[in-house]
Amino acid sequence: MVFKDKIKGAFQEAQARICAALEAEDGKGHFGWEEWSHASGGGGITRVIQQGNVLEKGGVNFSAVEGEIPVFMKNHVAPQATHFFATGISIVLHPHSPLIPIIHMNVRYFETNGGDAWFGGGIDLTPIYVVKEDASVFHSTLKKVCDKYDASFYSTQKKWADDYFFNQHRNETRGVGGIFYDYIKPSDGKFSHDELMNYALDLTQTFVQVYVPLMAKYKAQEYSSQQKEWQLVRRGRYVEFNLVYDRGTRFGLETKGRIESILMSLPEHASWKYNFVPEENSDEWRTQELLKKDINWIEGV
Amino acid sequence: MVFKDKIKGAFQEAQARICAALEAEDGKGHFGWEEWSHASGGGGITRVIQQGNVLEKGGVNFSAVEGEIPVFMKNHVAPQATHFFATGISIVLHPHSPLIPIIHMNVRYFETNGGDAWFGGGIDLTPIYVVKEDASVFHSTLKKVCDKYDASFYSTQKKWADDYFFNQHRNETRGVGGIFYDYIKPSDGKFSHDELMNYALDLTQTFVQVYVPLMAKYKAQEYSSQQKEWQLVRRGRYVEFNLVYDRGTRFGLETKGRIESILMSLPEHASWKYNFVPEENSDEWRTQELLKKDINWIEGV
Repeated sequence: MVFKDKIKGAFQEAQARICAALEAEDGKGHFGWEEWSHASGGGGITRVIQQGNVLEKGGVNFSAVEGEIPVFMKNHVAPQATHFFATGISIVLHPHSPLIPIIHMNVRYFETNGGDAWFGGGIDLTPIYVVKEDASVFHSTLKKVCDKYDASFYSTQKKWADDYFFNQHRNETRGVGGIFYDYIKPSDGKFSHDELMNYALDLTQTFVQVYVPLMAKYKAQEYSSQQKEWQLVRRGRYVEFNLVYDRGTRFGLETKGRIESILMSLPEHASWKYNFVPEENSDEWRTQELLKKDINWIEGV
Repeated sequence: MVFKDKIKGAFQEAQARICAALEAEDGKGHFGWEEWSHASGGGGITRVIQQGNVLEKGGVNFSAVEGEIPVFMKNHVAPQATHFFATGISIVLHPHSPLIPIIHMNVRYFETNGGDAWFGGGIDLTPIYVVKEDASVFHSTLKKVCDKYDASFYSTQKKWADDYFFNQHRNETRGVGGIFYDYIKPSDGKFSHDELMNYALDLTQTFVQVYVPLMAKYKAQEYSSQQKEWQLVRRGRYVEFNLVYDRGTRFGLETKGRIESILMSLPEHASWKYNFVPEENSDEWRTQELLKKDINWIEGV
């Protein structure tokens, strides 16, 4: 089997597994199933949950598309090639409760007809209220899976996530970060196609392993309308990041991807209040103060 | 008085006049007053209304800033220059009622130390439910002011608005359009600085003249929760346009403008439902069908 078919199959399997695990913890919502084709070749399966018990809106998307290389990618990474193949899984989950963080995961594999191939991906957590021990567990778990592959992965990719999941115009991180990587190429000789695929698949397992316990831990806890309002403001920032900076969103828009699949990452409700500033020493203020790069979440703030 | 001081003064005066007219029709809300300075020079006055009777959130912003020319502008219009001066008024209003359209107006003047000077601006209307006679009155009124200056203004600038206020990834216009213009230069010899300033000032009058009657016409009418939901979805599209395409927003973000002033254009509440498609022949569907370019609103659809 050629590699691209192998990884495509593995990603599709991972999609099914992730949806099943999330549905089990949600207890009510079900992920829909929309198969779609891309105008230039390939397609995907979009699986969206809406109005579950725990999850208000979320998507676990699989796609495997091909087509002409968009200009911005051509210049950046593949000057010789004319066509690309890309497969990946993209997840964003927006829970009802402001006590449960928003989470995002993406793993992807690209190859071109010029012989280029590279992997990318990441997981990051966006708590509405930062709980330091949760952030520590999240980062420790990521570090463990990173360390299986390379001693430098966690520190490099943690820093990359800090830089990437960053709302520059707000000078604040999206949340407590996580890991992010891109352009890791088998041709560099350090990792084989299979090793990089296994890293990606391990991350899909890790995703379930870190998020389902957070759903379980907070789903029964009550929250106030003030906490809900703060969630809507934080979701507004999430929208800003995704529409202004997110590469996957930009790639999707520029390659004329399926819009509803790309923008499933946006929350059902979001809010922008003019000049909203949390009261000093409030819980909201404490979270705001922690939306910074270069925090060592594992050792503690 | 040098021209830039003259137009700056005139814009500031227009800001005060517009806020007073809107407050009178709103009957409850008041526009705040925040003066701010730009890191690289100049500043502005941000006037935001929140939770009025009619207006849920809106801003009437004045600014006059200067600084180093951002790269994207340098390449595009002013390759010789190193510094710019820009002054303008920006308005976006989000009413509570889905029966009252969202409106946007902007007029602006730029000059550089390389001797370049140009004007830009526009008004566009985003009804949640398109009412054809309102769209016709809106466009007729714009045409009248355009015709005072040049016989080609309306047709050129109406087309430009159709192309500009367009969510490419959705293949739909933001609303019923209006007019948009940019890079009109006194150095082209057709219009003087003063004529172009007067055109801009006339547009600020026209803005009040078209919008206040719409507030008055619909503010007492009841609406359903279904209409409110559709409004939140349409506002989501408004957010998409502003964060993905809007030049003013991009200019603001790239020149490190005051974020809360730039993003006052975003609504207090917006919503994204996955794959939301209005029921065929519903009012929502009829509006959706009219979100197209090249409609002759004056003569009727």
